[in-house]
Amino acid sequence: MAGGVLANGEIGRLIGLVSRLPGLGPRSARRIVLALLRDPKGRMVPLARAMQEAAASVRTCSRCGNLDGKDPCHICMDPSRQQDVVCVVESVADLWALERAGTYHGVYMVLGGVLSALSGVGPDDLNLRPLLTRLDEGSVREVILALSATVDGATTMHWLQERLGGYGVSITRVAQGVPVGGALEVLDDGTLAAALSARRPVV
Amino acid sequence: MAGGVLANGEIGRLIGLVSRLPGLGPRSARRIVLALLRDPKGRMVPLARAMQEAAASVRTCSRCGNLDGKDPCHICMDPSRQQDVVCVVESVADLWALERAGTYHGVYMVLGGVLSALSGVGPDDLNLRPLLTRLDEGSVREVILALSATVDGATTMHWLQERLGGYGVSITRVAQGVPVGGALEVLDDGTLAAALSARRPVV
Ligand SMILES: [Zn+2]
Ligand SMILES: [Zn+2]
Repeated sequence: MAGGVLANGEIGRLIGLVSRLPGLGPRSARRIVLALLRDPKGRMVPLARAMQEAAASVRTCSRCGNLDGKDPCHICMDPSRQQDVVCVVESVADLWALERAGTYHGVYMVLGGVLSALSGVGPDDLNLRPLLTRLDEGSVREVILALSATVDGATTMHWLQERLGGYGVSITRVAQGVPVGGALEVLDDGTLAAALSARRPVV
Repeated sequence: MAGGVLANGEIGRLIGLVSRLPGLGPRSARRIVLALLRDPKGRMVPLARAMQEAAASVRTCSRCGNLDGKDPCHICMDPSRQQDVVCVVESVADLWALERAGTYHGVYMVLGGVLSALSGVGPDDLNLRPLLTRLDEGSVREVILALSATVDGATTMHWLQERLGGYGVSITRVAQGVPVGGALEVLDDGTLAAALSARRPVV
């Protein structure tokens, strides 16, 4: 807030915090805060409570890197899912996107990023250890690489193919339907489902 | 969230609440919640606390209809402002917009709406009583009408001119710079300042 009555006080502080959320700015933050202030008990307090609860209970799954109220997460603990099929994704957002598509019934490995010379992200910065442990144990049948079709995504997929190639498990990658240069997260559910079912062997 | 692992649980609930905020949807809500989950202590908890505090302390000013941590609000209690000049606005959002413009030094009357046959908003639905009381007391020198240049805004200004005409105070309206059909809230600060300084007598 530039100057005026809102520079200080509860409302100004709240607008400042909301305006720094991704995709929002001062104008959308003011609109949101006003809507919340119009119904403090019905909207603002429940939202604040949901945030407190999430902050207190949500953690990163030590097996797959997913965010969940439990560790291991719901997916890792789901006996109806194929625990020997592991889909490698860049982020929790991508994991959520695949879950919304609703056709994948294996588990995940969330890397937490992709290799990037520009951003200085190297192999040691990626969360791959839990998958390597599972591979060492021989409890993995197939690894599906589901990374965005960007330069960094492709680089990471090549590196993963080499890194995981020695374990003698099937390595596939989602292919059909992922537009070149497109980010996986923003694809519609149908495209994602198609890309997943048309996966092909890497070699 | 459509189906999947997020239908229940803390994260799904939080995304649901965030996605119902004005201007947001499921995708932007997921993006915001992920950003908050990445730094629970640094971002989510402070935001939740700010909401709790705002919900507990912010109330509607009984003198002007503004939202503030105090009643009467900062503006109504500010001895450096002209308490005998009252600017009539539709909403708190419009009051904030005028405060950001930074050139107005009087006080406000927030109507909480404008007359609208379509929405069934009549004179009794508008918050005008505090201004009438001040007019009865003879403590008002000028009333500035600053309503949006919409059909309903114009109708309301005409009604206010008649309703307030008998008190013998100067009634002006912001004029220059408010585009026809435009909402006051989204105007830039310079346009608002120009409209305010170029106000003219109603009759
Ligand atoms: Zn997990
Ligand atoms: Zn006030």
